[in-house]
Amino acid sequence: MTSEEKPPVVELTAEESWKYVEKTFHGRIATSVAGEPDIFPINYYAHDGVLLFRTAPGNKLAELTVNSHVAFETDGIMSDEAWSVVIKGTTRELELSAEIEEAEKLPLKPWVRTRKSRYVELTPTSISGRFFNLGPEPEDEY
Amino acid sequence: MTSEEKPPVVELTAEESWKYVEKTFHGRIATSVAGEPDIFPINYYAHDGVLLFRTAPGNKLAELTVNSHVAFETDGIMSDEAWSVVIKGTTRELELSAEIEEAEKLPLKPWVRTRKSRYVELTPTSISGRFFNLGPEPEDEY
Repeated sequence: MTSEEKPPVVELTAEESWKYVEKTFHGRIATSVAGEPDIFPINYYAHDGVLLFRTAPGNKLAELTVNSHVAFETDGIMSDEAWSVVIKGTTRELELSAEIEEAEKLPLKPWVRTRKSRYVELTPTSISGRFFNLGPEPEDEY
Repeated sequence: MTSEEKPPVVELTAEESWKYVEKTFHGRIATSVAGEPDIFPINYYAHDGVLLFRTAPGNKLAELTVNSHVAFETDGIMSDEAWSVVIKGTTRELELSAEIEEAEKLPLKPWVRTRKSRYVELTPTSISGRFFNLGPEPEDEY
């Protein structure tokens, strides 16, 4: 099948979307506090149906405490194709020492050499993904 | 200066941040409607201090109409460094035929071959960026 024959956008199933999320380690969290959206890049680790990320005390953690409803996006762009997955869900900070100890064992790599001492777990309530066959727009027909 | 000597995170000025935004064409818009954050990947074109992107009628456009306050993020990740810029601002749909004609002349490439007939302009109210020297976390000191 040539590039022209491929559909420009393919909806991914939840299972397909999750596989992309599991293979990726960088995304963004969107929060909303008093009608003001905010967005943060994160490094995450997906395991057992949840996402785990780390944060230092600050704006990001504070906003999650006020409204635990978040949206998450991750994507990948290649030369002729791309994909994007959006997860909606709720977050909670890990507080029990036993679960923090478990989290410490996971291969969650921080992006930079700063201390990020809190763990936040994102439990999805919905997941949707799209796969894009990149190319020019169709000719104008009107 | 060796990698160990570089600071892990460097705050970018607004001017430096905008240069990264201008050189990039893919990002994400975070919206908030009734306390529910949402997030959408977009292709955009930055010019004259604003971002322009296209959208087909649908969820994304509807959410921007209800609450024009948005957050935008774009980033780049290389093997040993990364950057991320966050813009907060407001959006409006282009409606005057003269401004739509001007927008048609800009090199705003759609990601896929589907019709995206609306133009949305994002005017920043704040811009912040960070540059990351990637590397492992410092040794645990407690």
